[in-house]
Amino acid sequence: MSNNSGDLILTERDGAVATVILNRAEKLNALNREMWAGLGGAFRALDGDEDIRCVILRGAGETAMGPGADIAEFSDVRANPEQAAEYGGLMHAAMHAIRDCRHPTVAQIHGLCVGGALELALACDIRICGEGSRFGIPVNRLGLVMAYPEIEALVGLVGRSSALEILYEGRVFDAAEARDKGLVNRVVADERVAGEARAAARRIADGAPLVNRWHKKFVDRILAGGELSAEEEAEGFACFDTDDFKEGVRAFLAKDKPDFKGE
Amino acid sequence: MSNNSGDLILTERDGAVATVILNRAEKLNALNREMWAGLGGAFRALDGDEDIRCVILRGAGETAMGPGADIAEFSDVRANPEQAAEYGGLMHAAMHAIRDCRHPTVAQIHGLCVGGALELALACDIRICGEGSRFGIPVNRLGLVMAYPEIEALVGLVGRSSALEILYEGRVFDAAEARDKGLVNRVVADERVAGEARAAARRIADGAPLVNRWHKKFVDRILAGGELSAEEEAEGFACFDTDDFKEGVRAFLAKDKPDFKGE
Amino acid sequence: MSNNSGDLILTERDGAVATVILNRAEKLNALNREMWAGLGGAFRALDGDEDIRCVILRGAGETAMGPGADIAEFSDVRANPEQAAEYGGLMHAAMHAIRDCRHPTVAQIHGLCVGGALELALACDIRICGEGSRFGIPVNRLGLVMAYPEIEALVGLVGRSSALEILYEGRVFDAAEARDKGLVNRVVADERVAGEARAAARRIADGAPLVNRWHKKFVDRILAGGELSAEEEAEGFACFDTDDFKEGVRAFLAKDKPDFKGE
Repeated sequence: MSNNSGDLILTERDGAVATVILNRAEKLNALNREMWAGLGGAFRALDGDEDIRCVILRGAGETAMGPGADIAEFSDVRANPEQAAEYGGLMHAAMHAIRDCRHPTVAQIHGLCVGGALELALACDIRICGEGSRFGIPVNRLGLVMAYPEIEALVGLVGRSSALEILYEGRVFDAAEARDKGLVNRVVADERVAGEARAAARRIADGAPLVNRWHKKFVDRILAGGELSAEEEAEGFACFDTDDFKEGVRAFLAKDKPDFKGE
Repeated sequence: MSNNSGDLILTERDGAVATVILNRAEKLNALNREMWAGLGGAFRALDGDEDIRCVILRGAGETAMGPGADIAEFSDVRANPEQAAEYGGLMHAAMHAIRDCRHPTVAQIHGLCVGGALELALACDIRICGEGSRFGIPVNRLGLVMAYPEIEALVGLVGRSSALEILYEGRVFDAAEARDKGLVNRVVADERVAGEARAAARRIADGAPLVNRWHKKFVDRILAGGELSAEEEAEGFACFDTDDFKEGVRAFLAKDKPDFKGE
Repeated sequence: MSNNSGDLILTERDGAVATVILNRAEKLNALNREMWAGLGGAFRALDGDEDIRCVILRGAGETAMGPGADIAEFSDVRANPEQAAEYGGLMHAAMHAIRDCRHPTVAQIHGLCVGGALELALACDIRICGEGSRFGIPVNRLGLVMAYPEIEALVGLVGRSSALEILYEGRVFDAAEARDKGLVNRVVADERVAGEARAAARRIADGAPLVNRWHKKFVDRILAGGELSAEEEAEGFACFDTDDFKEGVRAFLAKDKPDFKGE
């Protein structure tokens, strides 16, 4: 079921659900330059696959989603503004590929989720973690700034005050505080994280896939601001022309389970 | 106290507080085309009434605010994009009439509040529900999309991630989760919902009514974005020219209860 | 360590941490015209001081941050729209001086924090209060409106619905509800408020100060909306040219505590 299995970024498939894995368990999935590049490619490939209905992002193992970027390679690849801009370009391309993926995305967070790992989780639509998970963005301990694209995702999720609190204090905090700040959608027992992410993906994949894609598109269009064109407004009613709508109403009235085809 | 009492949308008055009732208890207040049209009219009429200080929106009975739109009539009134656009026009006019009503609005939520019923509640300024209330927008089980005006209200209240979570998973969830997501302002014991909504309406009606209307106008103006004109900025000080301001300061200094006239 | 100690607004220094004090304990720190003017001046002075790494704002004593504006002087200084616009200009200049201060700001909230005192706290980046703290903006009991700059801070922090709920009902509510609404970042035991604010300021001051200032600038730039210029995007990588970045990476790899100079 898996491909590229020797690589640092794996993509697995289970029916309509794909799972992308940060595969560097021996370093707690610390993100190096190659992984940022691989992530962007993996999500762009999934975006083009019409059969996908949900994508899960996780780290290998259940110890950590990740401690962030691999600081050991900074002296080679992130030592000055020029290198940092290039490295940042790969980071931001990866985050944008996750964010702009047409399919629903779920971050399945085991254990530590700090710095770059948290930024990847923020790019997903939904975040599910365990009670023992820990979060933070302690970059001001490194003299390091979050660039604009990363800040945008954080502020968009938790607002100005919690974003500044996280960035200023640099604390690593627990799952309850993360939930309280709106940083994660759901906290479950540590041993239930994988099962809950799978169950969420299953619920998502059971819904009409075109509807899920339209909802993501519409939510992001609303957040982009500005007047809607007549064509955009009309797209809000395009679902009424799909086979899946007929199937949904039929199944509802028959008290049956709908079987959506994505057309 | 009530008018139009044979109708599907009732408006009752108790002094300065009006209550609009989705009056179809035998169908758990499922919303049909006639009710969407009636709601828009009811709220536009209340908007024009200067004596009103608060409007409560509720369903008949204490079993449900509503299960959403009445799917049984979809094959007649919502069977294709053209019909859906017309039906959607009525829905959105109703939501906008609630949202743009100059008076403070409170959704009094008993029991199930799903789909279109939740969208109506979202159009109100404040939502109060019972511990047994249940919420959700499981439209992707019907192959059905929320159009832009409905998405706008949801995203505006709970943000991108919770909005997508609600729409993607299609779960029906409890009042505690609704509170946690910011979908409702207040959860009370089921038997206290009506009393708490009445008490909130009373507190609102006891405040200076012009001030409440200005606050609603100013909050929405801020959210609309863009530079304020000099006239708009000046309106922030117009209250100092009202009799109610003089009465408010007098009462405060006299440790008295103010008697506001709305002028 | 303190200056201007006979005044209504005090500024104290403890290393890189400054504390601004509303110093009118005998009136529970009720804000008069002179205090609004003094606050603006105090924060503008701190903004210009490169050695500062964090500013705490608090009221004198541990009974109250404040009950709001001093209504006793309204008949002299806030009796009509013209006076109100001038008084409002001082209020808004104070709030903007806090909000736009380049340094991280923390509101240390003891006890009652109502009306203008809460508005000042809202202008800070982070709010820490005690379990016994109480909050509210009961201005509609006075026939008084929050002007646009005040509404902007409130809505930016808690969103449309909670803002309207607070303004419409005029209730004074407890710290748990304030936390629930997102009005404060942290609630601790009353006797721990000062210690927690100091500990937060210490954590903030221990981070690289240029990074903290950049983060505040970037967060506010994102919230201002609109396209970023190439220069702005490039500033996201300027930290890689600082001595503090070299020190941060050195200390991390050496498992050492970094010693940041702000350069």
